[in-house]
Amino acid sequence: MNTAFIINSMWVLIASVFVFLMHAGFAMVEVGFTQSKNAVNIIMKNFVTVSIGVMCYFFVGYSIMYGTDFGGVIGTDMLMLIGKPEELNGISFDVFFFFQAIFAATCATIVSGAMAERTKFTSYIIFCLVATTFIYPLIGHWIWGGGFLAEQFGFRDFAGGTAVHAVGGFCALIGAYMVGPRTGKYRKNKPVAIPGHNIPLGALGVLILWFGWFGFNPGSTLDITSSVTIHSAVTTLLSGAAATLSSLVFCCLKYKNPDAPLTLNGALAGLVGITAGANEISYVGAVVVGLLSGIIMILSVEFVDSKLKIDDPVGAISVHGVCGTFGTLAIGIFSTNGGLLYGGGLKVLSSQLIGVMVCGITAITLAFVTFWFIRFFVGLRVREQTEINGLDNIEHGISAYINL
Amino acid sequence: MNTAFIINSMWVLIASVFVFLMHAGFAMVEVGFTQSKNAVNIIMKNFVTVSIGVMCYFFVGYSIMYGTDFGGVIGTDMLMLIGKPEELNGISFDVFFFFQAIFAATCATIVSGAMAERTKFTSYIIFCLVATTFIYPLIGHWIWGGGFLAEQFGFRDFAGGTAVHAVGGFCALIGAYMVGPRTGKYRKNKPVAIPGHNIPLGALGVLILWFGWFGFNPGSTLDITSSVTIHSAVTTLLSGAAATLSSLVFCCLKYKNPDAPLTLNGALAGLVGITAGANEISYVGAVVVGLLSGIIMILSVEFVDSKLKIDDPVGAISVHGVCGTFGTLAIGIFSTNGGLLYGGGLKVLSSQLIGVMVCGITAITLAFVTFWFIRFFVGLRVREQTEINGLDNIEHGISAYINL
Amino acid sequence: MNTAFIINSMWVLIASVFVFLMHAGFAMVEVGFTQSKNAVNIIMKNFVTVSIGVMCYFFVGYSIMYGTDFGGVIGTDMLMLIGKPEELNGISFDVFFFFQAIFAATCATIVSGAMAERTKFTSYIIFCLVATTFIYPLIGHWIWGGGFLAEQFGFRDFAGGTAVHAVGGFCALIGAYMVGPRTGKYRKNKPVAIPGHNIPLGALGVLILWFGWFGFNPGSTLDITSSVTIHSAVTTLLSGAAATLSSLVFCCLKYKNPDAPLTLNGALAGLVGITAGANEISYVGAVVVGLLSGIIMILSVEFVDSKLKIDDPVGAISVHGVCGTFGTLAIGIFSTNGGLLYGGGLKVLSSQLIGVMVCGITAITLAFVTFWFIRFFVGLRVREQTEINGLDNIEHGISAYINL
Repeated sequence: MNTAFIINSMWVLIASVFVFLMHAGFAMVEVGFTQSKNAVNIIMKNFVTVSIGVMCYFFVGYSIMYGTDFGGVIGTDMLMLIGKPEELNGISFDVFFFFQAIFAATCATIVSGAMAERTKFTSYIIFCLVATTFIYPLIGHWIWGGGFLAEQFGFRDFAGGTAVHAVGGFCALIGAYMVGPRTGKYRKNKPVAIPGHNIPLGALGVLILWFGWFGFNPGSTLDITSSVTIHSAVTTLLSGAAATLSSLVFCCLKYKNPDAPLTLNGALAGLVGITAGANEISYVGAVVVGLLSGIIMILSVEFVDSKLKIDDPVGAISVHGVCGTFGTLAIGIFSTNGGLLYGGGLKVLSSQLIGVMVCGITAITLAFVTFWFIRFFVGLRVREQTEINGLDNIEHGISAYINL
Repeated sequence: MNTAFIINSMWVLIASVFVFLMHAGFAMVEVGFTQSKNAVNIIMKNFVTVSIGVMCYFFVGYSIMYGTDFGGVIGTDMLMLIGKPEELNGISFDVFFFFQAIFAATCATIVSGAMAERTKFTSYIIFCLVATTFIYPLIGHWIWGGGFLAEQFGFRDFAGGTAVHAVGGFCALIGAYMVGPRTGKYRKNKPVAIPGHNIPLGALGVLILWFGWFGFNPGSTLDITSSVTIHSAVTTLLSGAAATLSSLVFCCLKYKNPDAPLTLNGALAGLVGITAGANEISYVGAVVVGLLSGIIMILSVEFVDSKLKIDDPVGAISVHGVCGTFGTLAIGIFSTNGGLLYGGGLKVLSSQLIGVMVCGITAITLAFVTFWFIRFFVGLRVREQTEINGLDNIEHGISAYINL
Repeated sequence: MNTAFIINSMWVLIASVFVFLMHAGFAMVEVGFTQSKNAVNIIMKNFVTVSIGVMCYFFVGYSIMYGTDFGGVIGTDMLMLIGKPEELNGISFDVFFFFQAIFAATCATIVSGAMAERTKFTSYIIFCLVATTFIYPLIGHWIWGGGFLAEQFGFRDFAGGTAVHAVGGFCALIGAYMVGPRTGKYRKNKPVAIPGHNIPLGALGVLILWFGWFGFNPGSTLDITSSVTIHSAVTTLLSGAAATLSSLVFCCLKYKNPDAPLTLNGALAGLVGITAGANEISYVGAVVVGLLSGIIMILSVEFVDSKLKIDDPVGAISVHGVCGTFGTLAIGIFSTNGGLLYGGGLKVLSSQLIGVMVCGITAITLAFVTFWFIRFFVGLRVREQTEINGLDNIEHGISAYINL
């Protein structure tokens, strides 16, 4: 018996199961922070995301991401895992795929939140299909699959601060921009708050996501025998906690109000913020990254809402896009392995900057093209009457709640 | 230190904990898909199921299922685990019991969903007691405990497609039939839809169940050193995803409506469908089993509702009974180890057919006898006035929700 | 590779993640069992508890609890983990800290439940800060950190029946007493029932807590190679199940009503009751401890409510304080290692009694001093008008639910 192989495979299996529950977390966060009349639609999108994500990644996506590299740009074989090896990275190949497949779906989920409450169900399905078949796997290949970003630029992204969160957030930005704001969101050019309808469910979602993050980050080492695995669990805990507090305090200072949705999003901001560097940022560094993430997220939410005038019902652009980017850059500053504050100069920071820009521009471009085609052929937006009456009654013929 | 023993015991412990959370999943699914006036009653049934299930299985059930075999029919010793060994199947005996005890309660839970909203609380408790003391352990003995089905007929049921789900589903069929439909369910002999009251909670329940299934199926190997464990995690993921999509598409084609409850039940159908053969069906096979499960479930729901005129509020008969049966038979077709499509002829299929028939007939008979006695001595059904006002107010003196 | 070190570290990592989800459980229980107008406030308190708990414990609390012992009373070094070793108790130091940090926050959470619906947000935050920086770590040091209770008196508390639950419950008693009952709770000196607003969420919370308890208790061995780990998983299951049933039956006998909140709290009572002795009480003993816990909890709830006239909205004093104390004493009776029933005489029981009294008096004193200062400088209670309108609208400017 190869003990290390068995133990590590077991660890990745368990971590994957933790990550799977994040889909319940995303669903509850998105439902809780939007209006009751669209809750069923959001639920359905989340189920479709998991299912299409897994299917597309199995049939094509894995191949693009981890197939034999072609020119540093794209993977080329193992469609439907045909020709798969027994073992990869010291663990069972199958469990590596399992972990990756569950990961893949999370990227698209981020977009569903930002486009909630006015996007056509079929249009989202098509985007989800493209994202999990092509967009995420392509960029993922550059970072983790032997592609040019990691190999030639030394770009570092431990658990997907860029590959999952920033990419998801940038796609969300484009999607939310192209579908336009919800009816009534802007009056006389000023944003109107449209509060979420079920804060307890949203809070449950955040805590479930936090739970899942302990699979997402520490699981990314694929190696429980390494002390990095546990290190990244602790940084995940500290950053999430610090960001919760900094966003709460910042809310109180800025708005004189301990705002619940912003504080809950603060926890997520801290978790996203530490994702890229959870393995190489110190404990105190993780606290600092968390504190900053919580504040940056709030500033970004306000900027997106009031300046860009892009309507993002759940704050996904700020939480995932902005904090994912920040966290990726933060490696250049806080990494104990070559970060600016640890005497490494600007080398790491500059390669992080290049990497995040390449991924950002690619994600934005591919999302734009995809949504443009969808808008052209199918249309992005539901009718105004559907939006006003709620997508649940019109698109799904059902109400989320009866006689509560 | 016996490393394999320790690692495998640890794995089964963790898998059991995953399975435990399924009770939260069942509770939320059953609550979400029924009416708000009966939510507390359903919650109480779920708590009773876990508790009675664990107690009965500890005191008697385990003994019947895994005690020393008598004539291939029933286990005979180890009441209250007296005389238990240190080790069993290469793992700690105690963890084997832990896993089995948590499993045992799931079978009865299935019945509570199908009989929801009109069954007396005490009547259900009595059935639950009989089911976890005798019905499930007896049939379980035939399949897993050294009994005649596995030993003489070569019947295969990896993780309980028949032992748990089909048996639960058949008991549910009898229970729902004998207690009769909810008042107002059939008007002029046509079924009236009684929609669930809290779809977000129901959806959360489905995702929690899916999470728990990664303990239910992969845990059933009791052996993390075997590649089968991870294989069955991947087939569970693929089948659930495929079934979600097939039921969604089938809904849209058949009813011109992306129906939420049916899609969510689709996910469960795929998970039930792969349970019996998760270890020996290929990845592509798992996708096919999932696709079929999602469609079969919808056809069955319609058949039970419109033709049999049996009122099953949450679709438990179709999800667990029909898809559990289908998945057990599917081994005969899709198993890479002797399935019809892999050149094995009809041998496996026929032994699967025999096994599922024996279990089905037994479950139906025992459930009928049990419910008949309950009906005779206690009565199965609440008064019409109680049903109309809601079981929560009348039987439990409380409302599930206040001032939402 | 040191296999035992790796496997045990992995086990504690996973157990910690299970325990983390308990914060979602606590949040849902407290939300579900209180009024809808205060749900956001409760959510916010739970997020603050996790975050402050982790931060305070990282910066100071760990040091007091597990730093180099001074006089058997207090730990003295390792602020911010400076000077931490690689390894502790045969596992990675970092994972030991991770487990302890997540534990730390649960103690304060108990208090938030008992003081719900009328306590100032800032006042609770201050208490939480003191509790996780000082109160819990100090008492924890006496029991687990090399302090006098364990070392000199042989006090036993396996997983925190006293260190977490009784201490939390005693602090809750003082807090609830000092803040006073909710407006309208007592009319003509008689308690008025103020029912919880969302029983399904509360039930979900209980089941999530039960799930997390399988990390809380079995994780406390820090050693998966020991059979005690699995033993304590089984006792946790049995005691929880037995207590659910005994509280249900006792409710029916006493109030002629299968009361849902009391039955759900019964499950928690059984889990708390077995926490101190989960490692050394037999399976049948665990059933008995569970049965008694369920009944004791109900008697205590009535006593606190009607005789003491202390308003504890969620029953935290009885569930955690009383059952934690009972469970700690139960070791003296039921322990297979020196318990009264196993021929050990009164030796263990008396040292348990001393330990629980020392901890109880200390917790009560420290909580009283802390709340006294808070009351003096900040005030404990919101204005009556805030309480009547709900803390959500007034303190947080938001409603938990909209348009359900």
